[in-house]
Amino acid sequence: MRWSQSHIYTLKEAPSDAEIPSHKLMIRAGLIKKLAPGLYTYGPLALRAIRKFENIIRQELDSRGGTEILMPIVHPRELWEETNRWEEMGAGLLKFKNRNEHWFCLGATHEEAVVDFVRNDVKSYKDLPKNIYQVQTKYRDEIRPRFGLMRGREFIMKDAYTFDADQASALKSYDVMYNAYKAIFDRLGVKYRIVQADAGNIGGSQTHEFQLLADAGEDSLLVSDTTDFAANIEVCPAIDSIAHVSHEAPKEIEKFATPGLKTIADLSKSTGVQEKDLVKTLFFSSNDRTNPKDTSLKPICVLLRGSDELNPIKLKNVLKLTNAPLMLTDAEVREVSGAHPGSCGPVGLKIPIYMDTGVQGLKNVIVGANEDGFHLKNVNFPKDFQATQIVDIRMAKAGDKCPESNGKLQAFRGIEVGHVFYLGKKYSEKMKATFLDSQGKAQAFEMGCYGIGVSRTVQACIEQNHDQDGIVWPQAIAPFDVHICLLDTKDPNAVEVCLKIEKELVAKGLDVLIDDRDERPGFKFKDADLLGMPYRIVIGKKGLEQNEVELVIRRTKEVSKVSPDVVSSLVKRA
Amino acid sequence: MRWSQSHIYTLKEAPSDAEIPSHKLMIRAGLIKKLAPGLYTYGPLALRAIRKFENIIRQELDSRGGTEILMPIVHPRELWEETNRWEEMGAGLLKFKNRNEHWFCLGATHEEAVVDFVRNDVKSYKDLPKNIYQVQTKYRDEIRPRFGLMRGREFIMKDAYTFDADQASALKSYDVMYNAYKAIFDRLGVKYRIVQADAGNIGGSQTHEFQLLADAGEDSLLVSDTTDFAANIEVCPAIDSIAHVSHEAPKEIEKFATPGLKTIADLSKSTGVQEKDLVKTLFFSSNDRTNPKDTSLKPICVLLRGSDELNPIKLKNVLKLTNAPLMLTDAEVREVSGAHPGSCGPVGLKIPIYMDTGVQGLKNVIVGANEDGFHLKNVNFPKDFQATQIVDIRMAKAGDKCPESNGKLQAFRGIEVGHVFYLGKKYSEKMKATFLDSQGKAQAFEMGCYGIGVSRTVQACIEQNHDQDGIVWPQAIAPFDVHICLLDTKDPNAVEVCLKIEKELVAKGLDVLIDDRDERPGFKFKDADLLGMPYRIVIGKKGLEQNEVELVIRRTKEVSKVSPDVVSSLVKRA
Repeated sequence: MRWSQSHIYTLKEAPSDAEIPSHKLMIRAGLIKKLAPGLYTYGPLALRAIRKFENIIRQELDSRGGTEILMPIVHPRELWEETNRWEEMGAGLLKFKNRNEHWFCLGATHEEAVVDFVRNDVKSYKDLPKNIYQVQTKYRDEIRPRFGLMRGREFIMKDAYTFDADQASALKSYDVMYNAYKAIFDRLGVKYRIVQADAGNIGGSQTHEFQLLADAGEDSLLVSDTTDFAANIEVCPAIDSIAHVSHEAPKEIEKFATPGLKTIADLSKSTGVQEKDLVKTLFFSSNDRTNPKDTSLKPICVLLRGSDELNPIKLKNVLKLTNAPLMLTDAEVREVSGAHPGSCGPVGLKIPIYMDTGVQGLKNVIVGANEDGFHLKNVNFPKDFQATQIVDIRMAKAGDKCPESNGKLQAFRGIEVGHVFYLGKKYSEKMKATFLDSQGKAQAFEMGCYGIGVSRTVQACIEQNHDQDGIVWPQAIAPFDVHICLLDTKDPNAVEVCLKIEKELVAKGLDVLIDDRDERPGFKFKDADLLGMPYRIVIGKKGLEQNEVELVIRRTKEVSKVSPDVVSSLVKRA
Repeated sequence: MRWSQSHIYTLKEAPSDAEIPSHKLMIRAGLIKKLAPGLYTYGPLALRAIRKFENIIRQELDSRGGTEILMPIVHPRELWEETNRWEEMGAGLLKFKNRNEHWFCLGATHEEAVVDFVRNDVKSYKDLPKNIYQVQTKYRDEIRPRFGLMRGREFIMKDAYTFDADQASALKSYDVMYNAYKAIFDRLGVKYRIVQADAGNIGGSQTHEFQLLADAGEDSLLVSDTTDFAANIEVCPAIDSIAHVSHEAPKEIEKFATPGLKTIADLSKSTGVQEKDLVKTLFFSSNDRTNPKDTSLKPICVLLRGSDELNPIKLKNVLKLTNAPLMLTDAEVREVSGAHPGSCGPVGLKIPIYMDTGVQGLKNVIVGANEDGFHLKNVNFPKDFQATQIVDIRMAKAGDKCPESNGKLQAFRGIEVGHVFYLGKKYSEKMKATFLDSQGKAQAFEMGCYGIGVSRTVQACIEQNHDQDGIVWPQAIAPFDVHICLLDTKDPNAVEVCLKIEKELVAKGLDVLIDDRDERPGFKFKDADLLGMPYRIVIGKKGLEQNEVELVIRRTKEVSKVSPDVVSSLVKRA
């Protein structure tokens, strides 16, 4: 393709709302252009990268028995009400009335739609398994869209759904998709990790995330330095590398004044007790108060070591909620405990207490006295208070013990680009989607669902693969394999050599962009670095006088001067 | 592809809401499945046809300098307000508020979005022309979706936009796209006509529709039997094949009682005057009363021959309105004329009168007396009433004179599948989208826009190409070129021959569907006829004993028994 005939516009500066490198580079390279917050037009280069990635996905899914369909973007309310998700999805599901006053939403995910597509058609266990997927634009009404395509409102997603007759074969289908995803991300040629994860409001009991590693990633990952264990911090079991078990003899409780001490840090400083040996008392409501039908206060107390952080996802799962529970306000805490949150503790509380496993090894601890400006010392479990449940509800962290070995956990940042879920019958039962088993009995389908954020992955690749000069495309999805800088656009010989090289490259199945603009060499090189195609070939009058063109490897910036007759043989396919 | 591994379900009966053959067949063949009115899931076969058609479009546009991008589906209100179309588009534009209380709409067309994409980037006349297109899902909030994909709410469209420096080059770009569309529909291998058309609320002064011919088409076309002239009836000039000019001497006006006569038919019967020699009086408001800012009554009168029908599009264009004008209610007519509509006429009216050209040749005509139950006879123009304008505002019809020759017009029904518009500066001026011309002066872009209804075309092809047994796909977009009915799925020899033939066909670049289900031959043949792939190959144990397989041409049902060694050589590519 000729630059002059395409629509590629580069910028020197990124707009002020671009916070991370990939967002800045995508705007600067003209890959995307903002129409409104979270809504981007994909320019010709971005679209080429997206299509290449889509085709990798298609090949890997089709070769494993996937069937591609395309479901609507707009869904009727009645469909989502069958699974209660019309309410449960919250404000991220964009709902609207059409001109006939019927309610619809923009599809944020398609479990309901695909179950509707399959039910009544797939009648017998003989028709199973089914593996159905689509590549479709989805919409989530992000309250604060940011990071370009990473957290946009409109995005392109590949979502797949499997239907099986029983759990064993559903888990086999899960493995097929797990391996398909591995193949897809391997072909991308990027650094990624497969981690244990939370199922969120998709539901399901087995799930893995595919995380592209990048410093600007929104997810925290913990990875074993010894085994294959890797988990999103949201679900990573917390095991202290050195178990904290105090063997002190229990002493008698004593109340003491702590005027003005409201934080663990204050208390540690004032008492000389290390934060890790103090106990934090937190209050939550154990229901989903964002649900308009259940906004009542159901207070619970949570105990953690002073140096630990609560993991809201673990607490959500312990409480079997759809969304993470809300903290009580100061006033609500006072209603429950009689004191300001900074002076609260478990002793004497009449509400359920969830104690983190890290707390159980402590003895003679200091906790709030449930009286403003006072704490208790020498408090011991279970003598002085009872726990409803002793459970892992803290954040694991780098240095913690690997849950599967004696190794330690290391921290990484990741961008979630893929997610596989085993769903069981969660959707099929609610939607009465059944088949007849070999005994002629109606059974709900065993399901799995599997997503890849197509547009997000393209940006994540850039986030992981760039340098100070621009993008460094993984060749598998590079918009073009080769970027030819034709320096002397009016020199007939240079033009002829350029067309010959282009022809040779195209014959090898490579995609070629020719910068045929009437611009200075330095200007063209800067743009070539910014656009980041894997190979750059520089063709100029001067070099040709020596029978030379320049071949530059974008990733390493390695330059070789070679004969125009051999240059195309040095360019490899992805 | 194996039938057993795909997701293809055929039905014996079409649902009751399917009114036309193509809709029935698409449902019966499992091509589409309804999620809600006007919202369909495309099954694997329909998606293959759509993708093939998209690729034909891409090839023809790319080879003519088109650049593909992808614009958002959701657009912000501010964008559409720049051109006033936020209001002007009416209720078909689906509008909603997001969670942050900002207004958005679902893109029904993308002129505003593409101008926003191009403005500020394209700075100089040297960057022009630009030809930018996308293939995207669009949404129009049809009040009564029907006919499957033909008048759905969500649909796939290819929309292209050209940007030029001046009108001459814009018209050249128009011609390029006109020819691209001809190439696209020629490659489809279907019967179509290119007709003159109305620009609707897209605007623009030059426009052609590409109409696929089919009896169930929603559009009426009039086509010359002598020249290339063809027009949508909406804009077809009306020229009576025999001019009606009466040479009677004008007589004196006379009022006579016509109790109970409210229609032209009643009047003709009672007076013995033929309908074509009577005059119809109609009343409209000459503003867009659907615009909430201008709902006042601006009454006008329209006169037509009794046998003619008003063409609301012509009247809209005469009045320079965006939408066809609304008729007055009986009460409003009485306010204006003093009588019931059945007793109205032009004599004595104090409002603008638009007289159809067909009326001017009449003499001594009968019209309503503007007094209930009375008419006037011997009324003559311009003696007895004045006309604001004498203008062609009636529907042309089959048998009318061809506007370009002495030939006659023939009537066809068509399905609009493509539309090209020359827009001029309508959008660029309103959106301040300018470039610097060779004198360094800012100029608004000269634009064109060009649409192809991708999903609609696929259905239109079926509407035009089917028989009593099912679909007869044009091979260019057939989901598969060849449908192999493997009769004896457990016979090793039959299976081996099948796989060998498949391999040969695939090597020729053909797409092959193998019906490997364990079903009776008759059942498989019925499904093969219904699905309608161009070639069917029947492979059975019995035939193979004679070293024969059966090759069936779907369109002609021509059957040949041939050796399995040569059958693949008899199958042609599209």
